Amino acid sequence: MLRIGPIAAAAFARRAPPRHRLAGNRESIPRSWPPALSRGGGGGGGGRVLPVLKTPKGTRDHPPAQAALRERLLGTVVSCFKRHGAAAIDTPVLELRETLMGKYGEDTKLIYELQDQGGELLALRYDLTVPFARYLAMNKVNNMKRYHVAKVYRRDNPATTRGRYREFYQCDFDIAGQFDPMIPDAECLKIVHEILSDLQLGDFVIKVNDRRILNGVFAVCGVPESKFISACSTVDKLDKVPWEEVRSEMVGEKGLSPEAADRIGEYVQLHGGLDLIERLLQDPKLSQNKLAKEGLGDMKLLFEYLTLFGITGKISFDLSLARGLDYYTGVIFEAVLLQQENEHVEELVGVGSVAGGGRYDGLVGMFDPKGRKVPCVGVSIGIERIFSILEQRLKASGEKLRTTETQVLVATPQKHLLAARLKLISELWDAGIKAEMLYKKDPKLLKQLQYCEDTGIPLAAIVGEQELADGVVKLRDVSTREEVDIPREKLVDEIRRRLEP
Amino acid sequence: MLRIGPIAAAAFARRAPPRHRLAGNRESIPRSWPPALSRGGGGGGGGRVLPVLKTPKGTRDHPPAQAALRERLLGTVVSCFKRHGAAAIDTPVLELRETLMGKYGEDTKLIYELQDQGGELLALRYDLTVPFARYLAMNKVNNMKRYHVAKVYRRDNPATTRGRYREFYQCDFDIAGQFDPMIPDAECLKIVHEILSDLQLGDFVIKVNDRRILNGVFAVCGVPESKFISACSTVDKLDKVPWEEVRSEMVGEKGLSPEAADRIGEYVQLHGGLDLIERLLQDPKLSQNKLAKEGLGDMKLLFEYLTLFGITGKISFDLSLARGLDYYTGVIFEAVLLQQENEHVEELVGVGSVAGGGRYDGLVGMFDPKGRKVPCVGVSIGIERIFSILEQRLKASGEKLRTTETQVLVATPQKHLLAARLKLISELWDAGIKAEMLYKKDPKLLKQLQYCEDTGIPLAAIVGEQELADGVVKLRDVSTREEVDIPREKLVDEIRRRLEP
Repeated sequence: MLRIGPIAAAAFARRAPPRHRLAGNRESIPRSWPPALSRGGGGGGGGRVLPVLKTPKGTRDHPPAQAALRERLLGTVVSCFKRHGAAAIDTPVLELRETLMGKYGEDTKLIYELQDQGGELLALRYDLTVPFARYLAMNKVNNMKRYHVAKVYRRDNPATTRGRYREFYQCDFDIAGQFDPMIPDAECLKIVHEILSDLQLGDFVIKVNDRRILNGVFAVCGVPESKFISACSTVDKLDKVPWEEVRSEMVGEKGLSPEAADRIGEYVQLHGGLDLIERLLQDPKLSQNKLAKEGLGDMKLLFEYLTLFGITGKISFDLSLARGLDYYTGVIFEAVLLQQENEHVEELVGVGSVAGGGRYDGLVGMFDPKGRKVPCVGVSIGIERIFSILEQRLKASGEKLRTTETQVLVATPQKHLLAARLKLISELWDAGIKAEMLYKKDPKLLKQLQYCEDTGIPLAAIVGEQELADGVVKLRDVSTREEVDIPREKLVDEIRRRLEP
Repeated sequence: MLRIGPIAAAAFARRAPPRHRLAGNRESIPRSWPPALSRGGGGGGGGRVLPVLKTPKGTRDHPPAQAALRERLLGTVVSCFKRHGAAAIDTPVLELRETLMGKYGEDTKLIYELQDQGGELLALRYDLTVPFARYLAMNKVNNMKRYHVAKVYRRDNPATTRGRYREFYQCDFDIAGQFDPMIPDAECLKIVHEILSDLQLGDFVIKVNDRRILNGVFAVCGVPESKFISACSTVDKLDKVPWEEVRSEMVGEKGLSPEAADRIGEYVQLHGGLDLIERLLQDPKLSQNKLAKEGLGDMKLLFEYLTLFGITGKISFDLSLARGLDYYTGVIFEAVLLQQENEHVEELVGVGSVAGGGRYDGLVGMFDPKGRKVPCVGVSIGIERIFSILEQRLKASGEKLRTTETQVLVATPQKHLLAARLKLISELWDAGIKAEMLYKKDPKLLKQLQYCEDTGIPLAAIVGEQELADGVVKLRDVSTREEVDIPREKLVDEIRRRLEP
């Protein structure tokens, strides 16, 4: 679905150094920042202090080639969200500080706060989920299927080559409302499957678990309830470190008994499909735990629905999946790419999780004055990581992305024909044709045709003295160099015909 | 070009109170904000402090109906920018504070600053022009035609009913580079003309002037050069207050002589077309001033190009136009709506200027280490004001905007058919059809059809026991209520055929 145009457009290379070089430079630029001096400046002029030419740490500009790639990527994601009937909403980048407090646990320290300049105390949003919950509570919305694609802000340690920035896009799809179990949850997984397939990122697996099953496991292994969340975050590390390390953290830092840790180990190293669910439903200990039983029952139902969707081949019920955030209450999931087709790319990018989400039935209640609950389930597409992969892949392929959509360059072969160009281009614009011309009175024809090749414009509409006298326009196919005289009144139709998909 | 669908979608009314009511309420909400208390909260839970449910002052959420209207509006603007061959760029919402300092004159106090949390001192961008200049200088770009649609931030006094917010969208198109005079400038005016025509906002006029002509006028009227900028900002008020008031400010506050003020008055009350330009080129005093002569010569050239574009009917050379910002160096322009078709709307909205821009040849040089200049001209579409007008107009018309694009609801007429619905909807999604179903095991058919009517879904694909047995799907046209049995393998094609534009 994401097609990369074959036509050359050297914009990126010409306009900015490659992103990773830039990122490296940022840190080494000497900081010539004396606030008092710069702020005193006021009107510029005389003995001016030159600003440091950089974007803030962990942020970046998108030159045209990157902006075009991002537009295509977001287009694919949004069209999937729309295919599933979601409406768009928008919320401010700024939220009251208190709206964000107490929602992110330890990560609260990563929130960007605004200076107190009088009035309300503000912060930049940290994700799109908490603003969504605030929106639902504030507007007393009981059910809604919405998507939201927007930037969020985290004062995290940037790792720009792996797509981790301080300002980055989130692409969220959420279903809020009281519905029959697992139907919206299954749709979220279907969406992840569709998007990763559409983007042709290579093989992937979607790991699924349920917080209730995890909590049930902890309970039957003898972990006290007060240590569930902390045990959860230790289990979460199993995708990066071996069980032995996780076990020693449980026993050491988290203070679990060695026996409890071993019992947990037997469970959380399990993964499989419907067969595993059935086995655990028969497990003498787990089947006695109310939470685990509920979770396993729902997991079975989920797999039934995913079978009808035909996507169980890429789904793994994985008891080691825990997810970082506190607010999940039921199903949780995470999609990971299995391997890159291109080893070189793998090494450079090093991506793992590219989508994640789950059920959070309590978050809206934290905002509602009466604690009214609105059950929610949602998915967030890890667009920055995917963007890194596509960017690296594009670079490796040597392909160039067009950064404009111009269909025709209006050109003249002789001098003193600016008026003819202006008149013709105006006719084309008014007919909805995407057209450009060079901003020179008398450009050379070669320069004009070169511009077409550089920027990927497929057609040139040439008016010279002869064409003006004959009432025609010479239409040139830039790639084949074929030229045909077209009666002026038929030009617009001919251009449309030629560019039909 | 901006068409408002005829189909009902009650989302807006259902999901949020009307915007202006909200805005009114904000101010009167009692502020239960003890920062120490809220911040102490941490993990939520027990004796929790309920957050104040609001967005920050001067900001707002966009519920689906507003988000859909905005998407259409931005779509019209962006497609015009693309028609003119512009590439997109993106820059961070955050800039180094020093990047923004000394660019906005008095308005610098309206910049949102971030708290110093260690590291760089940051601020939220105030417009898209200064970041664009920073981008050009930082990446040593010498020419570029770009558009940028994004949010900017100003700690201004909000006037939400007139579309003035603290967080708002700007839609900018700029041409950077050294080109032959007035060709890019003329294109900017053509773009304003196209967008305002496409949006069908009613009659409008685009006022044009040139900073060099204004400065020439001040010079020949005996104003010392040090008072040009201050005289300029006084002239700028002529669109709101009569000449007498402007004159008394000039003589009183600004300290000009009454004679100088009177001489200025003779000039700045003039407006017209090519005839006025010719007259001023013959003016014995003005024609002696180098700046004014240059400006008038270029204005004449501009009108020549605008004549070829066929848009001089809506252009007025207006010597009272001054524009607020300091950085303009040549042509300046501003589009105003002449009157609303609907008097009621006029009264509620009270919009004036809906687009503006001009030439700023010195701004990039302020960032460049060697002071290298990159001449620029650009236009900014006043999207928030236009949005207010369209919103009011939509409300007055009683029309409802669809907030989703769903083409088909997959429905069942009997119980125990959830599996059939899941299987069918999955087939439709995989074929790229936009489809929804209700998240209930056994919804009533009437409820399902009602959902189509409420949200504007044009078709229902119904599978009952009989249809399953016959290998067909009953396709229902929601508006006409006609139903036809379609062989299942032909359903996708039939849906596409029905929904062809």
